[in-house]
Amino acid sequence: MDVRAAVAFEAGQPLSIETVQLEGPRAGEVLVEIKATGLCHTDKYTLSGADPEGMFPAILGHEGAGVVVEVGEGVSTLKPGDHVIPLYTPECRQCKSCLSRKTNLCTAIRSTQGKGVMPDGSSRFSFKGRPVLHYMGCSTFANYTVLPEIALAKVRADAPFDKICYIGCGVTTGIGAVLFTAKVEPGSTVTVFGLGGIGLNVIQGARMVGAGRIIGVDINPAREAMARRFGMTDFVNPRDLGPDGDVVGHIVELTGGGADFSFECVGNPTLMRQALESSHRGWGVSTIIGVAAAGQEISTRPFQLVTGRRWIGSAFGGARGRTDVPTIVDWYMDGKINIDDLITHHLPLDRINEGFDLMARGESIRSVVVY
Amino acid sequence: MDVRAAVAFEAGQPLSIETVQLEGPRAGEVLVEIKATGLCHTDKYTLSGADPEGMFPAILGHEGAGVVVEVGEGVSTLKPGDHVIPLYTPECRQCKSCLSRKTNLCTAIRSTQGKGVMPDGSSRFSFKGRPVLHYMGCSTFANYTVLPEIALAKVRADAPFDKICYIGCGVTTGIGAVLFTAKVEPGSTVTVFGLGGIGLNVIQGARMVGAGRIIGVDINPAREAMARRFGMTDFVNPRDLGPDGDVVGHIVELTGGGADFSFECVGNPTLMRQALESSHRGWGVSTIIGVAAAGQEISTRPFQLVTGRRWIGSAFGGARGRTDVPTIVDWYMDGKINIDDLITHHLPLDRINEGFDLMARGESIRSVVVY
Repeated sequence: MDVRAAVAFEAGQPLSIETVQLEGPRAGEVLVEIKATGLCHTDKYTLSGADPEGMFPAILGHEGAGVVVEVGEGVSTLKPGDHVIPLYTPECRQCKSCLSRKTNLCTAIRSTQGKGVMPDGSSRFSFKGRPVLHYMGCSTFANYTVLPEIALAKVRADAPFDKICYIGCGVTTGIGAVLFTAKVEPGSTVTVFGLGGIGLNVIQGARMVGAGRIIGVDINPAREAMARRFGMTDFVNPRDLGPDGDVVGHIVELTGGGADFSFECVGNPTLMRQALESSHRGWGVSTIIGVAAAGQEISTRPFQLVTGRRWIGSAFGGARGRTDVPTIVDWYMDGKINIDDLITHHLPLDRINEGFDLMARGESIRSVVVY
Repeated sequence: MDVRAAVAFEAGQPLSIETVQLEGPRAGEVLVEIKATGLCHTDKYTLSGADPEGMFPAILGHEGAGVVVEVGEGVSTLKPGDHVIPLYTPECRQCKSCLSRKTNLCTAIRSTQGKGVMPDGSSRFSFKGRPVLHYMGCSTFANYTVLPEIALAKVRADAPFDKICYIGCGVTTGIGAVLFTAKVEPGSTVTVFGLGGIGLNVIQGARMVGAGRIIGVDINPAREAMARRFGMTDFVNPRDLGPDGDVVGHIVELTGGGADFSFECVGNPTLMRQALESSHRGWGVSTIIGVAAAGQEISTRPFQLVTGRRWIGSAFGGARGRTDVPTIVDWYMDGKINIDDLITHHLPLDRINEGFDLMARGESIRSVVVY
């Protein structure tokens, strides 16, 4: 079938709006009509060419929501008409990782997903007779896409696509890191480094579980008002501390010893170190959420860990896609979390490149393409 | 009173056996007759001058066992005749750290202990009229010493001093890291980097809690036989992997994905990184026990943490001194753990320097001075 897609033909070039061909679902696969998709920094990172694992031509996009159109042979948990959120972290419930009960990082289809193809090793997309790769197993920058059954979370039908698409990545990544990875406790002091989309979701996750104090750290003073609306209680702008500003010392003093839980939401190794070292001696848990550029490393003195700080990380918020994503949709519909204020721009597909420009200029929290 | 002590007059010099003066216990303090003391790498590190926090003259030693002789005003939990193990990590049960339930790193007397003095700011030891400093709040290289009540674990009276003194540091550090810090689970795969005294105690701790596979890593093949006796199931000598040996890759292959729990017991940042990176994606917990030299740093790619590995550390095995140390003494007396085979040498005080020579040559696991 013909579908409309924003195709990434090569690194460093804008996306190109094209009509591409999509094959129907094979065994274990599902054809989904994508109704809305968010634009995420990860798409931008891959498109820029900086991602060493990026491959082209590909149809990017991994933060979508839509409706099942057709299911392949053997698909038993989904049927046409079901509302779904594509999962770049699938949940097979049968692999060593899923059965460990300790991680959300299902490995069932990891190797093929990383190569931009479906589990059988082939792509369903093509353009002028040549294959176009899938991306993160999702490819939501097309109005129809095919995914494995295990990479789709079935969600309630009354939730608006243009909001819940954000649960496919950013919302879950931020809130999940608080709830599922770090397991923030009521009354805790929390620091959040970076008040973009992920950081704001960390803040509302911390508020949701009853954190006592939520300290946001950002060099952009414009972030303060929005962050306070989401639950931030204190704002630290490192630039206000002067050229030799000691962010770690400032936070340790502000919190009477350090944060119980800290989160790095930028992808900057310097901030990752600050987040760790400004967490509390004895029990501080510092969670890395941001994705650092290829080749970058984190470091610290081992004494920081020997004296009780814990350095951990979170991918997709530690959430199990099929199990936890529908619950997060419920939280949104019940008013427990705010997504509406985070979606600052809506665009049609043919203006998708404008969305990346807004992101680059820091003017959007989240832009969503509505098909 | 006059006491016999091995005094560290200056960095880099052998200890000097002297008669020094000891004042009696003040309020909240306890006079203890030390019956036996182990020699630990930490004593050697401080004596060498490499420890930037080392101060002289001092009476080193922090791994002792003895009997209460006299108690100061207000001491309510100990009386003359009680058998005790000095604690360089005290347990006041009232400070923010003790009350957190999350750490054993009591902070009640941290600042004065770090300065080599008692909580009131003065030393009880003197030599020729000049003060001699305490060390790690213990100073077990003297046949009598004074400690705060909160820095003494009361233990059963039938346990032999020359064995249980080792519980004052090495045994608890190794076994505790497994039980209290990492919380190793039955059936787990465990890797242990460094098969000295700490590593052997990690091994027997892992065996005690039912680890399925215990892999030891050491460049000294002579360590293999002893480690197997303590529960090691597999031995990896990095030197056998060739000059470009990939220890991480080898362990990942050997374990089918990496260890569930890894422990660094040397104090070498390169091994700390290997221990982390050879732990299992998704849930590997890597615990740093070894103390690195001043100024050294650990590093890794943040991706290692984002994909689910956890980097943590342990001091005194995460054990609460007054609460957990008596239990570990019981485990020894009940035959659940083996200390006898780890104590390879007994020496009188005036041959204490020979014990450090044995340590330097790697010929001892633990040397114990019996008074």
